[in-house]
Amino acid sequence: MPLNHLIRDGDNPDITEERQKATFSTEELAIEIYGEPLAQRRREISAEVLKRPELLDDCPHVFLDRTTKVENSMKKTVAVMEKGSEICDFTSREELGHLVCEVFGDDGFPLSIHFVMFLPAIQGQADDEQAEQWIPRAMRLEFIGTYAQTELGHGTNLRALETTATYDKRTQEFILHTPTVSAYKWWPGNLGKTANYVIANAQLYIDGKSHGPHNFLVQIRDENTHQPMPGITVGDIGPKFGLNTNDNGFLRFDHVRIPRRNMLMRHSKVSADGVYSPPVHPKLSYGAMIFVRATMIRMLAHVVLKAATIAIRYSCVRRQGEIKAGNGEVKILEYQTQQHRLFTALARGFAYRLVGDEVKNLYEKIAEEVKHGNVEQLADLHALLSGMKSIVSYDSGKAIEQCRMACGGHGYSHASGIPEMYAVEIAGCTYEGENMVMLQQQARYLVKGIHRLAHGEELSTMLQYLANTSNNKFRIGESGVDLENALILALEYIARSTIERVTARLDSLQNKGLSAENAWNENAVELTRASRTHTRLWIARCFRDRVHRIENHAIRSALTDILELFLTYEVVDMSQYLYQGGYANSDQVAQVKDAMYKLLEKIRPNAVSYVDAYEVSDTELRSVLGRRDGNVYDNLLKWAKSNPLNRTEVLPAVEKHLMPMMLAAKSKL
Amino acid sequence: MPLNHLIRDGDNPDITEERQKATFSTEELAIEIYGEPLAQRRREISAEVLKRPELLDDCPHVFLDRTTKVENSMKKTVAVMEKGSEICDFTSREELGHLVCEVFGDDGFPLSIHFVMFLPAIQGQADDEQAEQWIPRAMRLEFIGTYAQTELGHGTNLRALETTATYDKRTQEFILHTPTVSAYKWWPGNLGKTANYVIANAQLYIDGKSHGPHNFLVQIRDENTHQPMPGITVGDIGPKFGLNTNDNGFLRFDHVRIPRRNMLMRHSKVSADGVYSPPVHPKLSYGAMIFVRATMIRMLAHVVLKAATIAIRYSCVRRQGEIKAGNGEVKILEYQTQQHRLFTALARGFAYRLVGDEVKNLYEKIAEEVKHGNVEQLADLHALLSGMKSIVSYDSGKAIEQCRMACGGHGYSHASGIPEMYAVEIAGCTYEGENMVMLQQQARYLVKGIHRLAHGEELSTMLQYLANTSNNKFRIGESGVDLENALILALEYIARSTIERVTARLDSLQNKGLSAENAWNENAVELTRASRTHTRLWIARCFRDRVHRIENHAIRSALTDILELFLTYEVVDMSQYLYQGGYANSDQVAQVKDAMYKLLEKIRPNAVSYVDAYEVSDTELRSVLGRRDGNVYDNLLKWAKSNPLNRTEVLPAVEKHLMPMMLAAKSKL
Repeated sequence: MPLNHLIRDGDNPDITEERQKATFSTEELAIEIYGEPLAQRRREISAEVLKRPELLDDCPHVFLDRTTKVENSMKKTVAVMEKGSEICDFTSREELGHLVCEVFGDDGFPLSIHFVMFLPAIQGQADDEQAEQWIPRAMRLEFIGTYAQTELGHGTNLRALETTATYDKRTQEFILHTPTVSAYKWWPGNLGKTANYVIANAQLYIDGKSHGPHNFLVQIRDENTHQPMPGITVGDIGPKFGLNTNDNGFLRFDHVRIPRRNMLMRHSKVSADGVYSPPVHPKLSYGAMIFVRATMIRMLAHVVLKAATIAIRYSCVRRQGEIKAGNGEVKILEYQTQQHRLFTALARGFAYRLVGDEVKNLYEKIAEEVKHGNVEQLADLHALLSGMKSIVSYDSGKAIEQCRMACGGHGYSHASGIPEMYAVEIAGCTYEGENMVMLQQQARYLVKGIHRLAHGEELSTMLQYLANTSNNKFRIGESGVDLENALILALEYIARSTIERVTARLDSLQNKGLSAENAWNENAVELTRASRTHTRLWIARCFRDRVHRIENHAIRSALTDILELFLTYEVVDMSQYLYQGGYANSDQVAQVKDAMYKLLEKIRPNAVSYVDAYEVSDTELRSVLGRRDGNVYDNLLKWAKSNPLNRTEVLPAVEKHLMPMMLAAKSKL
Repeated sequence: MPLNHLIRDGDNPDITEERQKATFSTEELAIEIYGEPLAQRRREISAEVLKRPELLDDCPHVFLDRTTKVENSMKKTVAVMEKGSEICDFTSREELGHLVCEVFGDDGFPLSIHFVMFLPAIQGQADDEQAEQWIPRAMRLEFIGTYAQTELGHGTNLRALETTATYDKRTQEFILHTPTVSAYKWWPGNLGKTANYVIANAQLYIDGKSHGPHNFLVQIRDENTHQPMPGITVGDIGPKFGLNTNDNGFLRFDHVRIPRRNMLMRHSKVSADGVYSPPVHPKLSYGAMIFVRATMIRMLAHVVLKAATIAIRYSCVRRQGEIKAGNGEVKILEYQTQQHRLFTALARGFAYRLVGDEVKNLYEKIAEEVKHGNVEQLADLHALLSGMKSIVSYDSGKAIEQCRMACGGHGYSHASGIPEMYAVEIAGCTYEGENMVMLQQQARYLVKGIHRLAHGEELSTMLQYLANTSNNKFRIGESGVDLENALILALEYIARSTIERVTARLDSLQNKGLSAENAWNENAVELTRASRTHTRLWIARCFRDRVHRIENHAIRSALTDILELFLTYEVVDMSQYLYQGGYANSDQVAQVKDAMYKLLEKIRPNAVSYVDAYEVSDTELRSVLGRRDGNVYDNLLKWAKSNPLNRTEVLPAVEKHLMPMMLAAKSKL
């Protein structure tokens, strides 16, 4: 029996041929990725969804206008709430997450922010009494909440938010107010038309004194009529690049009064008589933000692997051009350029996905320590996530675009599914902290590391490599040094030398009399580069460690090919840094490239099996090009014929406008 | 009087402050870019369009569904045909092009392929009698044509097209036929619902013998009813990443008969009795393709400059974060990371725009020579355009995305206008020859160059630098070597050493016994890299020569800053190649970076004036963020409030689905 478990009768023979070549069991790789019983549960959930038409779309979602998209997702939300528990265990994040992917895809749905940010914020920031009051109601969906922080004129700099919450001692209420147009809350997901409650971030004022931004629970729409409450202006912010099923919204408060106990009071408190108590540890409020950054890595990786699934499968059924004249057109996956585009995307997808698991585990471990008052590793985690979020969002975007372009013209059609994937994924460069800001946050931590080293102070585990000055020659090809080790050391050198250089430049500008702030800004671009090299090293090491832990020999071997491709690609892509201080020469870099090209050939026979093993169902994939069965062309035609523009043979607009114009031109003669 | 001519009362003071700093006249730079009288004519046309509501959109085009977008563009098409000649000289490509940008933007309109491909194809490929028969009718718009080449299963490899045109001697007709699903014509612009005539590319068969692909004029819809003609199946291919106002279509022929004289017969002919005469020169049919590639460079550059206009203006009215604590939030353009993102995009935009002019001129010169039978430079031009098209489409896309992300969250909104710009522009990587294929076409020319050199044969002007082996040390900072020269020489070295390396690798694999085809495929990625280095050198030299020719001192100085930034950026971006063979060391690369960062500071005060001088009107820009007056926030709010999702305070779908769900949850207690 073939090791690839997705072979079915009626499939395109070109894709069956690929599956017959598998050298590892796709089910075993799925278990390595998802673990048991999740790998099996995912398949069962997918099968159950297929049986329930109320959970499926009547037509491709990309045929719908925004209002209909939103309506469709609301209808399916009710169906999931009614029937979902028959299919999946709602208490399992992983099972529920899979169900959401099947039913909604990744363009948003009405409860996404309610579950991903609103509830966790209450869980993390409400005191016990408040939690008891709000969490059960929120879990039962008596209302839908969202989280409102950014404003029309203000983003990541929380101290500059303009919305105020002024305490009125007399009535024991806070007065929420939006003083200017730039202070409108702007962007919160599901705020526009869905949510009737928000957690709003506002500057707390007591007796004319500001205590900085705090979170307040505010009802914005009536629970019975859904009309905005008095003093509330709320609406949708309009169409976007992607995520158009989500009604991201705007919100204005006009002196809206809420009870004192609607301020979330686990960390900071305001007493009835207006006495403010600050949090014990100022960094405790990081929690929510760090949580989202920790979980978004896997989500971004998931999109890359979906795009790779589509492009790799399609590249085995599309034939174009001859390699040897007269031998017939070949599968386009035979071209090295195609392999280079797609297998490196595949490698990054796997790397980010598996490293994403590790990051999630690390987050959970540190979050547990923080609960017990140990915030020692919080700075490390915060720095790491700032970098990770930036690298993974940007490099995933590039990989997805390569997958799209590798599908030629059809990749550009929404029939491929990839344009929407790019638009959704690339938003990750901006939300939860704009990448340039994030990279500089991490850079502060790195520069501090070099300074600590210079002062003989201890470095955290994450930065130990900065002290390894004996790593000063590229050892590729030396006897006793395997490829993997040589490449990891090369990545360590790249990061170390880049961080050292920018720190020296920073110090020298300050020694010349420049202020710390200006010296920083004059090095800002180089600091972001340093931050990238560090993060990419961390990802590479973490991916390597993950692959080394695999016990199943065939699976370890399969993922070792992916790991090695990933490492060679990273080193080639950053090779400009490899020459710094004479670490490497161009012949050595050519050796890395040769190794990379050999790995492409090695991976080629298993390409379809790698993506098959990631097991994204056709329902979730929403792609004509990426169909499991490879029957692409007939289905493209079917898809096209059913699109709204073909509802009438002759468009009414043609009859009304173009036909009279052409007929008039004829009659003018 | 300030040198920037766009200052008006009521503007945002933050943007006026920028304009007051201009060190050159924006009108003089506009003249340098557009020439006179076009610079002035463009402004007049923009002003006239503003006076005619029938040429303007009733609401932002991004609020409309596809069917309405298409309808809207048809309505405006009729208005342009009726009123356009009052506004602009239809015989001037430049004036008409500007009018189209104002009225339609770049998302497509019903006549785009009629004018850009259908008419030029007839002009180039019809014989005199055919031209006389068809061109006047096409010019008068008695019908609308398009150009149908690619098929569902076939793209750039013309020889594999499946559509057949079989000559029937008996009736002196061709029978057009689509034998399979993969042979459906697929993608032609305006084919789906608009066009009633096509030029179809099909394999010519006479007496069972194939003569390869030829072009045939076929009526596909009735001129009176617009219904498909007998044997024709035609429709729209569905929604895409961008260009959704264009009804790209599919087309099937079921034994459709057309007169013999509907084959375009300037180059090849079929006589009444079925005798085939091939073209005199096989490369003459390149013409149409080369024309589009030559003109698309400027179009792609135009999109980059529009995105840069938006992002640079917005970065002067958006304030976020403090550089020095306590000094207040700064314009985000003060950050080096922001300058690096935006000014390098600006530099690429200007480089590609001005080089695009040169390419267009070169095309016209060579096309003229070809007309007189001189095809000597056709291969050079073909190779150059293959590379140019690839570099400019991909690097422009990256630049546009940087502009978008530099606008933070608001960049992601369609209110910025940039998401659609990216989606439209990036299509250029795929249409008119997929980039990987194009880069390899150019690489063949480059490898041939190295081989010619080895055999002591002469090189074309474009490749002379391959012989310059004395350029073997990076001379930056040496006395007597200015920055510009050092950088151009560095780019020459980068290209030469990269082409040499890959040719050597190719030759060595063949010497080891690999077939030419397999050796090529095993070097394909490196060949594309070599192709990129050559093209980027050519662009840099051409841009340098263009700037050197500027007579106005202030304008030359202003564009010299842009040129130097462009050159430093290109060298830094390709610095991994600079180390090859020990040409440069890392301290020298650091010098280039320092020069680049200094140029960012130097350009900063003029940033808004550079984009102002490119003079894209607010009508054409279609961007709330990029408005000339800088009054962004009030208008973002207005834009958002008017979007379709806000038509009702409570969405019908919320009443129907979510409210019952929430109320049921409450009543369950």
